[in-house]
Amino acid sequence: MTMETVSTAKAHGGTQGVYRHRSTTTGTDMTFAVFVPAHDPGERLPVLWFLSGLTCTHANVMDKGEYRRACAEHRIVFVAPDTSPRGEGVADDPAYDMGQGAGFYVDATEEPWAPHFRMRTYIEDELPALIGSEFPVDPDRQAITGHSMGGHGALTIGLRHPDRFRSVTAFAPIVAPGQVPWGEKALGGYLGDDRSTWRAHDAVALIEDGARRPDLLVDQGEADQFLDEQLRPELLAAACAAAGIDLTLRMQPGYDHSYLGVSTFMADHVAWAAERLGKAT
Amino acid sequence: MTMETVSTAKAHGGTQGVYRHRSTTTGTDMTFAVFVPAHDPGERLPVLWFLSGLTCTHANVMDKGEYRRACAEHRIVFVAPDTSPRGEGVADDPAYDMGQGAGFYVDATEEPWAPHFRMRTYIEDELPALIGSEFPVDPDRQAITGHSMGGHGALTIGLRHPDRFRSVTAFAPIVAPGQVPWGEKALGGYLGDDRSTWRAHDAVALIEDGARRPDLLVDQGEADQFLDEQLRPELLAAACAAAGIDLTLRMQPGYDHSYLGVSTFMADHVAWAAERLGKAT
Repeated sequence: MTMETVSTAKAHGGTQGVYRHRSTTTGTDMTFAVFVPAHDPGERLPVLWFLSGLTCTHANVMDKGEYRRACAEHRIVFVAPDTSPRGEGVADDPAYDMGQGAGFYVDATEEPWAPHFRMRTYIEDELPALIGSEFPVDPDRQAITGHSMGGHGALTIGLRHPDRFRSVTAFAPIVAPGQVPWGEKALGGYLGDDRSTWRAHDAVALIEDGARRPDLLVDQGEADQFLDEQLRPELLAAACAAAGIDLTLRMQPGYDHSYLGVSTFMADHVAWAAERLGKAT
Repeated sequence: MTMETVSTAKAHGGTQGVYRHRSTTTGTDMTFAVFVPAHDPGERLPVLWFLSGLTCTHANVMDKGEYRRACAEHRIVFVAPDTSPRGEGVADDPAYDMGQGAGFYVDATEEPWAPHFRMRTYIEDELPALIGSEFPVDPDRQAITGHSMGGHGALTIGLRHPDRFRSVTAFAPIVAPGQVPWGEKALGGYLGDDRSTWRAHDAVALIEDGARRPDLLVDQGEADQFLDEQLRPELLAAACAAAGIDLTLRMQPGYDHSYLGVSTFMADHVAWAAERLGKAT
């Protein structure tokens, strides 16, 4: 596994870097961003994964997420992967909600997506191994969050790995892709028509099928243009209530779907993670 | 004077907006960004102007500047203008440091720039009048800051208007354009070969010629690639020392010229301004 440094710069006392590697999972070069706060020699820090939404690369949250100040304060490494494989030879779709920039954090089984669109394995296995080998992180202290499609990724990956992630939060997530147009298109396209295969990639279905966590935090803007049709946080609230999961769902009056909402509440999510990441075991 | 709202969104409890108007000064449409924190009905807030650097529009600091949290806390309106006139029929230069995106906050007297490149009058007169009429600001409580070319703008405009701006700060500013390549090219191009006309647009020269302020704050990264050739903060330090201006020049180890440095120290500049803006008179 080799990693190329695209850029680094000092920020909030730490280092904001952009890196590239050849992914054996996706068969493409993959770019990601990592912020490492100032820390002591040999110290291994907890890590917060941020999964981004439709159309995004690693750069959107790096530019607009306003996480560095809070991560520096709490000494948390922040990792922002890309949202799909990209490049020549990688299948794409002219729509913004399918193909490049819209990987939906699944391993595609359908053509033309199957050869490269393996974001589940990339985010769950390959990239964590690389981060663990190349950055000063403590794999026993991980948290995950994300925005929109990336909130879907954070919830589903967090629900599938309750022992890996001590903290799972999301900003304006797609909570039930099997029940909304974005998800039906993407999961159908990547995984095929058998909806039973979708359930491992649907937070509400995962909870219905027995996935459990102590708690979840979700911020959702009430002026979000995708709220009623695509996001539907009430479905997550109902599933959590039935399952005894302590969901903190904060409906935020006036906030839309943009990074202006994400950045407003980012410090709260970092603090929520910090409380649960605690000290090294 | 009419103003068009391009976009607004809630952020950090306030409103981040982008606006456009037809400038009679530049003869073009001009776009700018304004953040208005939450405030009481009828309350007029102090205002912090942020002037941006080469190649920037209003959007760079809006996306990457991380000012909203601090401005919300201190209840300060934040205004980010564009850096030049733009569009068809506006002169340009293929280089990044001349023409569109590089107005240098002067009123050009030379061709082909003179018809539109009137950023001094735009920033000093026309835009403040518009902001004062359209936003809940208190014109008696103004502060100004900026980055790089915009730091030059903030220092020179602040030095020319000591009674208007209670606080003047800068991030990695061009402090003596008359003595560095960026400035010699731009001031020569916009103002002509008579260097005596440049002195009103050169912070060090303005101080040498008698401009005074109680204090200034400048943050300058030591890893800034433009430090030695273009920025030269030691020239400002010498001029301030000779003139009795209390300059706080913070050389920041490891920081480069990017917005990662600006965003790191932004909260300090907002707090510095807040201390000096104080309460309504």
